[in-house]
Amino acid sequence: MARAIKTMIVRGAPAIGVAAGYGMYLGAREIETSDHHEFLQHLDKVAQLLRSTRPTAVNLFWAISRMLKTAYETLGTVEDIKQTLLQTAQAINAEDLQTCQAIGDNGLAVLPATPEKLRLLTHCNAGALATAGYGTALGVVRSAWREGRLERLFADETRPRLQGAKLTTWECVQEGIPVTLITDNMAAHCMKQGLIHAVVVGADRIAANGDTANKIGTYSVAIAARAHNIPFFVAAPLSTVDFELADGSKIPIEEREPTEIYQGGDTILTPAGVDFYNPAFDVTPAELITAIITENGAIAPRELAKSQLEKLPIGLNPN
Amino acid sequence: MARAIKTMIVRGAPAIGVAAGYGMYLGAREIETSDHHEFLQHLDKVAQLLRSTRPTAVNLFWAISRMLKTAYETLGTVEDIKQTLLQTAQAINAEDLQTCQAIGDNGLAVLPATPEKLRLLTHCNAGALATAGYGTALGVVRSAWREGRLERLFADETRPRLQGAKLTTWECVQEGIPVTLITDNMAAHCMKQGLIHAVVVGADRIAANGDTANKIGTYSVAIAARAHNIPFFVAAPLSTVDFELADGSKIPIEEREPTEIYQGGDTILTPAGVDFYNPAFDVTPAELITAIITENGAIAPRELAKSQLEKLPIGLNPN
Repeated sequence: MARAIKTMIVRGAPAIGVAAGYGMYLGAREIETSDHHEFLQHLDKVAQLLRSTRPTAVNLFWAISRMLKTAYETLGTVEDIKQTLLQTAQAINAEDLQTCQAIGDNGLAVLPATPEKLRLLTHCNAGALATAGYGTALGVVRSAWREGRLERLFADETRPRLQGAKLTTWECVQEGIPVTLITDNMAAHCMKQGLIHAVVVGADRIAANGDTANKIGTYSVAIAARAHNIPFFVAAPLSTVDFELADGSKIPIEEREPTEIYQGGDTILTPAGVDFYNPAFDVTPAELITAIITENGAIAPRELAKSQLEKLPIGLNPN
Repeated sequence: MARAIKTMIVRGAPAIGVAAGYGMYLGAREIETSDHHEFLQHLDKVAQLLRSTRPTAVNLFWAISRMLKTAYETLGTVEDIKQTLLQTAQAINAEDLQTCQAIGDNGLAVLPATPEKLRLLTHCNAGALATAGYGTALGVVRSAWREGRLERLFADETRPRLQGAKLTTWECVQEGIPVTLITDNMAAHCMKQGLIHAVVVGADRIAANGDTANKIGTYSVAIAARAHNIPFFVAAPLSTVDFELADGSKIPIEEREPTEIYQGGDTILTPAGVDFYNPAFDVTPAELITAIITENGAIAPRELAKSQLEKLPIGLNPN
């Protein structure tokens, strides 16, 4: 499971959380001891391995912590703990699906009221393939489509891994949602042409002030959206918020292998002697985000810290 | 030659101009008549064919017009005209190389004075492979490197055709210029990290007010540069300026085949049922451009109209 997360067989912050939950159970199942203390020591190592896979998405750390807490707090035999860990992993999975459906529906309250049929833009894949199902950003898209509020989705192809081209378009085709694929560098041009009414993206980690780490290129889209006065929404479960981090400058940004940039299939695109920089994420500052759409409602980024204390009103107007 | 231009075997606005000049001569050479009137009629058809290849780069139309004017104004036999056409094509070629060297050196006067060693960003390829030699934007990079003013070039890969990954990096490696390749969607993130001191790009057509059509994605980079207070330069010969067009909204934007987006080598990246939008260029408004660097000097976009009347002072401060 650690390898699957590291090599992005499983990707997308919420899906990574769900996978880490099951990963903790799979690890626990293989610990051959009935000694309570020894079992927990081994489980800590499983947690360590899973934590080392990808640094940015906070859902990974959140799910591992929840599983560890379960193990430490469960009374009974090691077998009892293993059983409870399975139930917890299944609960994380089921909750994520419900959460996504709530996020999708909550998005409807903050999408622009006009025109009736919206053209939305998304970056990367924050869909069913990035979650337990339904999706976060694509959850909003799905809900908008269901309610007749969507004309078409524009999808950034999302270099270097092309999650937009490969995953987002596939999900749309499955649902019959009209989708137009563009290269990442076309988004600003599309905005200028009046083709985009709002942007909805997912998140890998949100700091307490609302600064949001998401797939590389998100920041670029947010700047362009602001330049064209187009609302920019982040759709993410509250488990994506890292209240420990005051702002986005503290979010660790994973750098991945340059092969992702210079290799297309079996073809090497560049001559020898070139250097590469391959950050997998960037941070969009809170001031460029119109609202963060969570399972408890949509909220202005500056209101985020409060959400730790009180249940958000559904569909809170971010303005 | 028309096919070479259309399929981008020859690409880059100045190189297209040079190729169109030779294309007119190649067409003229094959016209088998000694009748002056008949020759010119056939040459008009050659011009028509070449004009139909690519709509955005104005150098194409400029070179064809210059060749036609030469043909119409040359006295003597058809053979004399053919000979003069060859000389004119060769002149366009030679002038372009000189022009690029002047552009490169004129760029030095407007690059930021500090730090001494600059990190520049470019988009697409406006180098020797886009001109008769030396390049426009890469001409500025070459001159900066020669004068010890360059630490490193950052090159956008430039989807969908990857001219940055394939051509710009190659030119840099040939010259020993340190180059870091990034995907287009990383440019804004790099700016935020303080990695970029200035942006230099080429142009395919510049309107009289300074609005500039260039490779798709340029506009996105310009918005990001402004958001980070980073100077954004356009480097282009005066033949790229279309004084007939009041502003950029009138520049025709070529749309190319969607295969460029969804096909990587022999691999189809997307499922069936997806729509595509593939504009090859976008327009960066003059207000985002710090200066236009021409063979006669660097100039603020709003001063461009004047340059038609008077020779520009070299190294005019755009501010």
